Amino acid sequence: MADRTTPGGDTVAGIGEFGLIGAMTEGRAQPSTTLLGPGDDAAVVAAPDGRVVATTDVLVQNVHFRFGWSSPAHVGRKAVAVNLADIAAMGAVPTSVLVGLACPPDTETSVVTQLVDGMWEEAARARVGIVGGDVVRAEELVLSITALGDLGGRPPVTRSGARPGDVVAVCGRLGWAAAGLAVLGRGFRSPVGVVNAQRSPEPPYAAGPAAAIAGATAMIDVSDGLLADLGHLALASGVGIDVQTDRLTLDQKLVDVGTALGADPMRWVLTGGEDHALAATFPSYTDLPEGWTRIGTVLLPDTGVTVDGRPYDGETGWEHWR
Amino acid sequence: MADRTTPGGDTVAGIGEFGLIGAMTEGRAQPSTTLLGPGDDAAVVAAPDGRVVATTDVLVQNVHFRFGWSSPAHVGRKAVAVNLADIAAMGAVPTSVLVGLACPPDTETSVVTQLVDGMWEEAARARVGIVGGDVVRAEELVLSITALGDLGGRPPVTRSGARPGDVVAVCGRLGWAAAGLAVLGRGFRSPVGVVNAQRSPEPPYAAGPAAAIAGATAMIDVSDGLLADLGHLALASGVGIDVQTDRLTLDQKLVDVGTALGADPMRWVLTGGEDHALAATFPSYTDLPEGWTRIGTVLLPDTGVTVDGRPYDGETGWEHWR
Repeated sequence: MADRTTPGGDTVAGIGEFGLIGAMTEGRAQPSTTLLGPGDDAAVVAAPDGRVVATTDVLVQNVHFRFGWSSPAHVGRKAVAVNLADIAAMGAVPTSVLVGLACPPDTETSVVTQLVDGMWEEAARARVGIVGGDVVRAEELVLSITALGDLGGRPPVTRSGARPGDVVAVCGRLGWAAAGLAVLGRGFRSPVGVVNAQRSPEPPYAAGPAAAIAGATAMIDVSDGLLADLGHLALASGVGIDVQTDRLTLDQKLVDVGTALGADPMRWVLTGGEDHALAATFPSYTDLPEGWTRIGTVLLPDTGVTVDGRPYDGETGWEHWR
Repeated sequence: MADRTTPGGDTVAGIGEFGLIGAMTEGRAQPSTTLLGPGDDAAVVAAPDGRVVATTDVLVQNVHFRFGWSSPAHVGRKAVAVNLADIAAMGAVPTSVLVGLACPPDTETSVVTQLVDGMWEEAARARVGIVGGDVVRAEELVLSITALGDLGGRPPVTRSGARPGDVVAVCGRLGWAAAGLAVLGRGFRSPVGVVNAQRSPEPPYAAGPAAAIAGATAMIDVSDGLLADLGHLALASGVGIDVQTDRLTLDQKLVDVGTALGADPMRWVLTGGEDHALAATFPSYTDLPEGWTRIGTVLLPDTGVTVDGRPYDGETGWEHWR
């Protein structure tokens, strides 16, 4: 256990737990949903629906992010974004997040303040509060975020409601983060568009509640990869899904990166995770909400997830622990 | 990064993330507040009050617990208990917890299942659900728990409402966990009463809402030590507090352990953390709820926390990071 307590405030050991929590929370603007913010034993958050949607995700340094590739601010944004995307994927509006931060005592204070700045930046983008947290020492940096949200009187949109004949649609980027990872993995830092997509995603939060209002029958956020996550949805719903590649837009940036690296950009779109787009199913008669694009069809049970009518011949997405 | 993937299911790498989440959640009885349990992008929990109380605490192996001293089941119980105590300290009834677990891939599956069994044991004791979670790989074991609760129409009891003339009261054990730590630190494993108090606390959850109903003006859970936590409450309320030691019960077990180790048991009571008793202030005319004992008085501002009218001559509690 590192125990290098410096006299000044340039490490987290130097400024201490309460100093650190102060730096994380003081002087930050809270939205109206934050009824009692940080500083007490617990926070109080508005839950006008009478139900609260809750999710938690943990990010570990050198597993889920690398400071060589991402700035602390990017990591902070990403940690908040991946959780808010899960709230949106239930059709809920995010209201708040809580932050657990474990880090070595000799972590530079500036790293933590930049992490926190990134968290607040993403929180502001989604108009949610950072309402509580805990800061503890550990041997490596671990970020644990919990996000809460409100359903606004609607039923939650689960993974299990898709029915044969529904259309499959997505909103948000696909394959960008994977292209960025490929670029970074080769030692490049550009094009910055795909690299920044890897550093921190930009999930389309408002598209979740919009899909719910439009009558989405099932929804999931694309964290592991489109085919992998549609597989989770198909399994939960007891249906098959066919994705039509001619409906998937291949942005010129992805084509260019694919050409430069000798990689197939459609593979990034189909199997790349971490963009946190939303994928949902809708009754076939639905006028899709703004930003949503049809990419496939829900089929009869037990056909699995197919691409252009055929099984996909490759890894479908991120496999944890391997 | 350890990457010893064993072929069987005897390590977490062997059974994988989804197997692990299944082991954590499948076949577990959820209370009626769990409207949608684990398995989707997020859970849905009842928040009948229209507000939700939320808190998060992170526990790190060899910082907050040691497997040489505590079984995984004890650690699981403790991780849940410390969070539920924070909910109770707001005067709220806990409804649910979410679990973030980071651990090395070569962690034995049985360690994780015992951890989770302990979490469920404590959750059942408080009648809350474990509604969601995340399991990721890391170099050391980190547990991040978020707890939610419901205020039942009452205002939250914060740290800042104490007024001069109020009585100070506590409910729950004080000094037991510190005595247990002293015993374990000397290499002993008994008396089991204090040792188990260190391994996992038994916070008096129901005493929090009971205090709120009785009109508590301020409340805090004793996690850092009685004097330290009363100091937080006094600071937030802008008051002084005097603790009268003749009102603090010294259980014979603590006296015996103190005699055996040559230590002052009253010091454990005044400064020992981790029992997660509740401390609160009440108007002087209050009939204290069952289980609450008066231990002191709220004084005029700027007198700090005193013991029998005098400043305390020692460390008042746990200092993080040092």
